[in-house]
Amino acid sequence: MTISMKKTGLAAAAATALLAIASPAFAQDAGVPAETQFILNSFSFLFSGAIVMFMAAGFAMLESGLVRTKNVTTILLKNISLFAIAGIMYYLIGYNLMYMDVSGWIGSLSLWSADDSAALGGDFSGGYSATSDWFFQMVFVATAASIVSGTVAERIKLWPFLIFVVVLTGVLYPITGAWTWGGGWLSEMGFSDFAGSTIVHSVGGWAALTGAIILGARKGKYGEDGSVHPMPGSNLPLATLGTFVLWLGWFGFNGGSQLAMGTGADVIAIANIYGNTTMAAAGGVVAAIILTQILYKKVDLTMALNGALAGLVSITAAPDTPTIGSAIIIGAIGGILVVVAVPLLDKLKIDDVVGAVSVHLVAGIWGTLAVPFTNDGASFGTQITGIVAMGAFTIVASSIVWLALKFTVGIRLSEEEEANGSDATELGLEAYPEFGKGSQRF
Amino acid sequence: MTISMKKTGLAAAAATALLAIASPAFAQDAGVPAETQFILNSFSFLFSGAIVMFMAAGFAMLESGLVRTKNVTTILLKNISLFAIAGIMYYLIGYNLMYMDVSGWIGSLSLWSADDSAALGGDFSGGYSATSDWFFQMVFVATAASIVSGTVAERIKLWPFLIFVVVLTGVLYPITGAWTWGGGWLSEMGFSDFAGSTIVHSVGGWAALTGAIILGARKGKYGEDGSVHPMPGSNLPLATLGTFVLWLGWFGFNGGSQLAMGTGADVIAIANIYGNTTMAAAGGVVAAIILTQILYKKVDLTMALNGALAGLVSITAAPDTPTIGSAIIIGAIGGILVVVAVPLLDKLKIDDVVGAVSVHLVAGIWGTLAVPFTNDGASFGTQITGIVAMGAFTIVASSIVWLALKFTVGIRLSEEEEANGSDATELGLEAYPEFGKGSQRF
Amino acid sequence: MTISMKKTGLAAAAATALLAIASPAFAQDAGVPAETQFILNSFSFLFSGAIVMFMAAGFAMLESGLVRTKNVTTILLKNISLFAIAGIMYYLIGYNLMYMDVSGWIGSLSLWSADDSAALGGDFSGGYSATSDWFFQMVFVATAASIVSGTVAERIKLWPFLIFVVVLTGVLYPITGAWTWGGGWLSEMGFSDFAGSTIVHSVGGWAALTGAIILGARKGKYGEDGSVHPMPGSNLPLATLGTFVLWLGWFGFNGGSQLAMGTGADVIAIANIYGNTTMAAAGGVVAAIILTQILYKKVDLTMALNGALAGLVSITAAPDTPTIGSAIIIGAIGGILVVVAVPLLDKLKIDDVVGAVSVHLVAGIWGTLAVPFTNDGASFGTQITGIVAMGAFTIVASSIVWLALKFTVGIRLSEEEEANGSDATELGLEAYPEFGKGSQRF
Repeated sequence: MTISMKKTGLAAAAATALLAIASPAFAQDAGVPAETQFILNSFSFLFSGAIVMFMAAGFAMLESGLVRTKNVTTILLKNISLFAIAGIMYYLIGYNLMYMDVSGWIGSLSLWSADDSAALGGDFSGGYSATSDWFFQMVFVATAASIVSGTVAERIKLWPFLIFVVVLTGVLYPITGAWTWGGGWLSEMGFSDFAGSTIVHSVGGWAALTGAIILGARKGKYGEDGSVHPMPGSNLPLATLGTFVLWLGWFGFNGGSQLAMGTGADVIAIANIYGNTTMAAAGGVVAAIILTQILYKKVDLTMALNGALAGLVSITAAPDTPTIGSAIIIGAIGGILVVVAVPLLDKLKIDDVVGAVSVHLVAGIWGTLAVPFTNDGASFGTQITGIVAMGAFTIVASSIVWLALKFTVGIRLSEEEEANGSDATELGLEAYPEFGKGSQRF
Repeated sequence: MTISMKKTGLAAAAATALLAIASPAFAQDAGVPAETQFILNSFSFLFSGAIVMFMAAGFAMLESGLVRTKNVTTILLKNISLFAIAGIMYYLIGYNLMYMDVSGWIGSLSLWSADDSAALGGDFSGGYSATSDWFFQMVFVATAASIVSGTVAERIKLWPFLIFVVVLTGVLYPITGAWTWGGGWLSEMGFSDFAGSTIVHSVGGWAALTGAIILGARKGKYGEDGSVHPMPGSNLPLATLGTFVLWLGWFGFNGGSQLAMGTGADVIAIANIYGNTTMAAAGGVVAAIILTQILYKKVDLTMALNGALAGLVSITAAPDTPTIGSAIIIGAIGGILVVVAVPLLDKLKIDDVVGAVSVHLVAGIWGTLAVPFTNDGASFGTQITGIVAMGAFTIVASSIVWLALKFTVGIRLSEEEEANGSDATELGLEAYPEFGKGSQRF
Repeated sequence: MTISMKKTGLAAAAATALLAIASPAFAQDAGVPAETQFILNSFSFLFSGAIVMFMAAGFAMLESGLVRTKNVTTILLKNISLFAIAGIMYYLIGYNLMYMDVSGWIGSLSLWSADDSAALGGDFSGGYSATSDWFFQMVFVATAASIVSGTVAERIKLWPFLIFVVVLTGVLYPITGAWTWGGGWLSEMGFSDFAGSTIVHSVGGWAALTGAIILGARKGKYGEDGSVHPMPGSNLPLATLGTFVLWLGWFGFNGGSQLAMGTGADVIAIANIYGNTTMAAAGGVVAAIILTQILYKKVDLTMALNGALAGLVSITAAPDTPTIGSAIIIGAIGGILVVVAVPLLDKLKIDDVVGAVSVHLVAGIWGTLAVPFTNDGASFGTQITGIVAMGAFTIVASSIVWLALKFTVGIRLSEEEEANGSDATELGLEAYPEFGKGSQRF
């Protein structure tokens, strides 16, 4: 039976589910009948996957709200393109590398094709539709790429970025994914990352960080005297909308990662996940507004938004095991970390346009480290091993890709292109041709 | 068995559900097995709660579209903060006051913690996951606070507003909630408010109205000669988007309030709710566009949006019992009321920035009064008692809070701050730094 | 048993479902119990319908992003009004003409009313709640009207447009719908259009095309020397958001069109539909960005967005039968067609403001023609018959309506009104009163 290992560590619920599947008699008499379970499990993948897909809209709005007007069209194009590319690459290569016949380090190159024939013949012991599982895994991969696009915005060339997405979603993410959710060596060690604080968010964050360092900062962002020149986002309602859309999608991201809804224990786990997910976000918001008020004597909306997202990333490694109170605290610490990390990166002259490294990498590490506090099945040693291993691999591999691109096609806009904005120079299409400065600039 | 009383009045469906739960034999042989029911009931809370949570995005977009540019960042910050605060306060105090051991007037102060142990042990007679119910109730409370934020926008200080939210969501809303959905005295009298035309919308509306009166109107809104100076919203696509998001979320708001999806009767009730909810909104839109065309010789988009919302609020007290035709009429009357109420409030020099009092309070009262037309279990006398009791309590209690804030920390921006906008003076962050006037103003 | 014929052609899944319904013993012993099926089938209608309703927001954002600032308020008003009108007309006339007692060409004029009494009495052989089915069919009709509003934007008068919507949604769409999903003559011939590439999208597209020709192009769009004057959209983030919202809603549009989720075979079909739907969109995006890069040496965001939508329209006629690989190709061809069709229409001086004819009509025809490639039950001859018959009817009927409106109330703004924009002249309400040129124009 090829069961995705994403559920590793969720022993209780999984055991109940397997028992019910394995024992038709029990299922008939006292539990949920096998075919009903099959429907509910598959539907959970489909519903969750649909709202995870919508997170692409969330990233698009968040990032287009946080860049300057002159780069808005480009970031929108990147966001819709990367989702499309990620899906196709994951279908062609990625899913297979990550989940098919994984032997420790990597899966297979043979093309995946749905096989629901057993269930169509009346045998529901597989538990869920293979296609529904594929759909759910597929929408995840774009998230990692979306994290990168925000960080490297406003100075990267379009096509080299999209080529990076091809490699990230087709090869890099699937390899570390194979080590964990694919059932490889980290999974065998007991590494615990329920819905991907590290497997999705840190991996995207490391790829973004590497890109930001290799690309360098936007022209004028950092003065030679150590000053930091703010480059405020052009449309904060869009950034706020994007945050709320991501928050919504996170119910699918975390809730769907239960990988089942066919038993009472599963739905209780999902209920805990929904409660903890939203309360961790709430904790992140409240921590960020209080901390920015204390530090800067005024509240910073973009920090509140990033606080929400940091709370969500923090809880993602173990959204099922904490109590509501613990979830608030885990999220609040995530929110604090992001308020601290954003100026720290600026001090290091690492230019992260939307704060994605602070949100996804820093809070992702925190969330992964926090698992053992609420989940007895996890250990700090193994968690650290997983964080370091995936980090090291992603840093090295994505550096190679970024540098290969840099020394072949080039990755950075010319100074003049950057000054005029990529919308004018690369696309010839303004995002807001009639608003304000936009109309006089080109 | 601690069953939330929100379902009071929905006798038929509830009876079926209880019968099925109480009689495992019947459930096994001829109905939905108990564990399947448990999953479906819990999932209904989770799905509905997720899209109700997304209503926070709807309010944020609606309100940021209807205020002027100079106050947009502030209203966005208020909306995400209030949702976070509402969740945490409701967890710490509110839910417990509202639902735990309610004895007529109020519940308990002991901290709630999820208890799904019976179901995890195989006993599904509780019917649903306690955490899923908590999640659904929790997302409701932010709605009441969102109503307030729109009305008092553009002149209130940030932190005093957030303190009001703390009290509203932790104490005020839970107290009147305990009287009704918590099973208190109004529930025992037979007060019928299915999903909260009064319990949520009027309560929010009263708190908003009280705040608007105590704060006073925006500088320059009303001339001494009785003239009304229009202050048009800065971004109508966002306001429209917000309305559609609220419309979507309302399927969860009303549909989830069936509190079950484990029987055929439940899902039929939910189907009626979905049909009636959307058609009441449609009735509200059509009434508003026709009426504004007649009254003003042109159609007003903001009235069409508020017409949709008024239709939704109107049907919320009884979305399950009307026919589709009746739902259209109930919603249309809501739409008419809002077109009449908005200028009336202006005549009274009560400055409601987004029209929330007209939408949520006026249409909320109408919807609650309309229940007996379609639901034999309700009486006008009891409905009026409930409206008056909850109104009186909320007016008095929120006045005390507003006045306490006014005479301690102060609630209103200075004239200069108001003129320059709270984004510049309180937050130092423009919502659209590159658009039009925005870029020259600070 | 009155089963909607929308499922025609989905033999395998339908047979399983009917078998399970018809044979309670089998359902009890080895499959999904009848009442559970009833709940799952009905919930699929409700969930799918809710996100299809949200497509109204998608169209509103897409269109308001693609028109110029001076017409944004009007297009928003049209979009919310048309949804409301469509729902009410479909309730009053349309649903009944389309589905009640269809005898070959048309249904009945008697008013529909929900009849779920059998199920409330414990007989679940109907399979789903009648109201849930009605709700799902109702939200579809607005889509056809939304297609029209984008194409004829920026020069049509408000009320004549809304009158056209009354006729389209109350009469025209229901008549061709009766021929097909209603069980009429095209259905009997074996015409196969799973979720409406032709029945919804082409019909909307033909009505839009007819309107665009009768209205004529916007003043200044086409020079006498054959030149085409670009009139760029005012807000591309909104257009992108709208595309993502439509993409999300399409899971409901196509997935809900399975009309059931009560068996394992049903949920497998829905899983295939979700996978194919999203991958066809991905194919459309990638094809559009590569092709515009080749043709114009730069990527066009609006073509990427329309490529996604064209991919979605293309797969809609048969989202269940292709493999993932085939779905990508079907969508990619849709994306290519739209990149080709948009300049072609301009060459013909047919002014389609948002590209809706290229997306919905051209890709709709392609998708309908492509069905026999993946579905043995369909034939090219029948598919062409259906496309031609529905096209001919819609062209003739909508021409009559457009011309009747033209020669009575008039359909086109005066030159001066068009130059100043309908927001100022028809509504007196600017969409962005404080942004850039907008504030100086009126």
